Amino acid sequence: MLTKEDTVKDKEEEEEEKEKPRFNFNLYMVEKARSVNQALNDAVLLREPQKIHEAMRYSLLAGGKRVRPVLCIAACELVGGNESTAMAAACSIEMIHTMSLIHDDLPCMDNDDLRRGKPTNHKVFGEDIAVLAGDALLAFAFEHIAVSTSGVSPERIVAAIGELAKSVGTEGLVAGQVVDINSEGLSDVGLERLEFIHLHKTAALLEGAVVIGAILGGGSNEHVENLRMFARYVGLMFQVVDDVLDVTKSSKELGKTAGKDLVADKVTYPKLLGIEKSNEFAQKLNRDAQQQLSGFDPVKAAPLIALANYIAYRQN
Amino acid sequence: MLTKEDTVKDKEEEEEEKEKPRFNFNLYMVEKARSVNQALNDAVLLREPQKIHEAMRYSLLAGGKRVRPVLCIAACELVGGNESTAMAAACSIEMIHTMSLIHDDLPCMDNDDLRRGKPTNHKVFGEDIAVLAGDALLAFAFEHIAVSTSGVSPERIVAAIGELAKSVGTEGLVAGQVVDINSEGLSDVGLERLEFIHLHKTAALLEGAVVIGAILGGGSNEHVENLRMFARYVGLMFQVVDDVLDVTKSSKELGKTAGKDLVADKVTYPKLLGIEKSNEFAQKLNRDAQQQLSGFDPVKAAPLIALANYIAYRQN
Repeated sequence: MLTKEDTVKDKEEEEEEKEKPRFNFNLYMVEKARSVNQALNDAVLLREPQKIHEAMRYSLLAGGKRVRPVLCIAACELVGGNESTAMAAACSIEMIHTMSLIHDDLPCMDNDDLRRGKPTNHKVFGEDIAVLAGDALLAFAFEHIAVSTSGVSPERIVAAIGELAKSVGTEGLVAGQVVDINSEGLSDVGLERLEFIHLHKTAALLEGAVVIGAILGGGSNEHVENLRMFARYVGLMFQVVDDVLDVTKSSKELGKTAGKDLVADKVTYPKLLGIEKSNEFAQKLNRDAQQQLSGFDPVKAAPLIALANYIAYRQN
Repeated sequence: MLTKEDTVKDKEEEEEEKEKPRFNFNLYMVEKARSVNQALNDAVLLREPQKIHEAMRYSLLAGGKRVRPVLCIAACELVGGNESTAMAAACSIEMIHTMSLIHDDLPCMDNDDLRRGKPTNHKVFGEDIAVLAGDALLAFAFEHIAVSTSGVSPERIVAAIGELAKSVGTEGLVAGQVVDINSEGLSDVGLERLEFIHLHKTAALLEGAVVIGAILGGGSNEHVENLRMFARYVGLMFQVVDDVLDVTKSSKELGKTAGKDLVADKVTYPKLLGIEKSNEFAQKLNRDAQQQLSGFDPVKAAPLIALANYIAYRQN
């Protein structure tokens, strides 16, 4: 005869069994993004000199899905670390992403007035402060990961800092932006150049996020390199999907101006491959990305698999 | 009776005795600056994407006395390290100094067309590339210290990276520049605010240079803190002397436009204290700085003592 306790245990086990395959991605994203937002708010306090901290917080806390920090935390957890191990690094990556948006929006670069429906940083604080807010976020990203990461060996922190820096400089964001600027008005931009731009402008920081999470979480070299390739495929896919959405969705559906690439006469995947082939390419990149996770426990890899699918099938 | 060998030895000892107090500062500076220039040239190679590396090298290799990297190396050697231990960090500090010059010269900041007699970075490469060259130098500074420092424990490298980042952000260069910008046109800028600006705009990176050198060289906490105070006094003195030279020397003597502060109606030490009291203040800061070195072997401390005197008594 079953005791009451046994019945309860069985029910719990049953529910656990039911829960396992049904990974709740939306809940996961909401909870992780909430933790990240809290940590960002605590990392950059409003203190003296007020104006520069106001400017940094204005763009850093302007919302966004926090895809990069969540990728960092998910990679850390996948290899055995926990959220708190990766949180400082996850925030550092979002600071760098924010810096790149502030500087890219400047009049001397893309000259954008709006970002996520709000006036851009230089529109509110002036160009001088916007340049400095970007510089300060970039520097603080390195201070934060160096000073606030705990429970990790200094060897791994140094390695993570090297990866973080590489994802920004002339092998990362800056390289992508420079080649993008140099390609404006060129009529012969082919697939190779387009891929270079996106691998640097978009994929590099996603790669940094995942690799840094894996390093800080204690991942083996093999696992770190698997995750690096996963992130590189996801990063490129992110941009292919973005290009397709720009020509297939309305501004209302996207929540931002649609058709911007066409107006700017920018080379995109749909322009070079057509929409159908671009969609096929994105699906292939998603498969290639997920293939890199085959050596991991699928239950533990669920968040990264879901993140890849989310990026592949998003509608805005 | 003395053998020939003894005579030679005596002569050598005599010459050593003679040499000891006569530390050849000019030779020291020339040799260290040459090593630093070589290391900077090797650190940022001209590679793809060409244009951004050209822009970075244009400003990084434009000359200058390399005071910050030499301070870093001298502090490292003082606590028992050697030149090669500190070289990557010394180069990182010069990269950050160069980044701050490129961004400060931008039209939205100080709008300068000339720097060390050459057109400023944005005049040659355009504003967009100048912003990105600064960003890339800032990021690369952290990559370089993290990846290329050898023979030092990772704990000390992480600590040095924390110090480097702090010297740039809202407790360093950026704070000084922001408060300087906010003080333009104010009639009530007093000594306290002036000191805040200079401690951040000028002293912070000098402090970073010395402290990082001492950390990487294996200095004790006490020695690191003595050297921190030394550098802070020297940094403030650097600026007081600069202010005095601006009003007492001709453009020809300075090798740059004299009287700039007067024209810009900037608050300076001579304006608040008069020239004589400013000179006295600089002398006091030099004494206070050197007082911090009293716990070190004076022969080993000779380079830092000479550097402080050089900054105090320079004529341009």
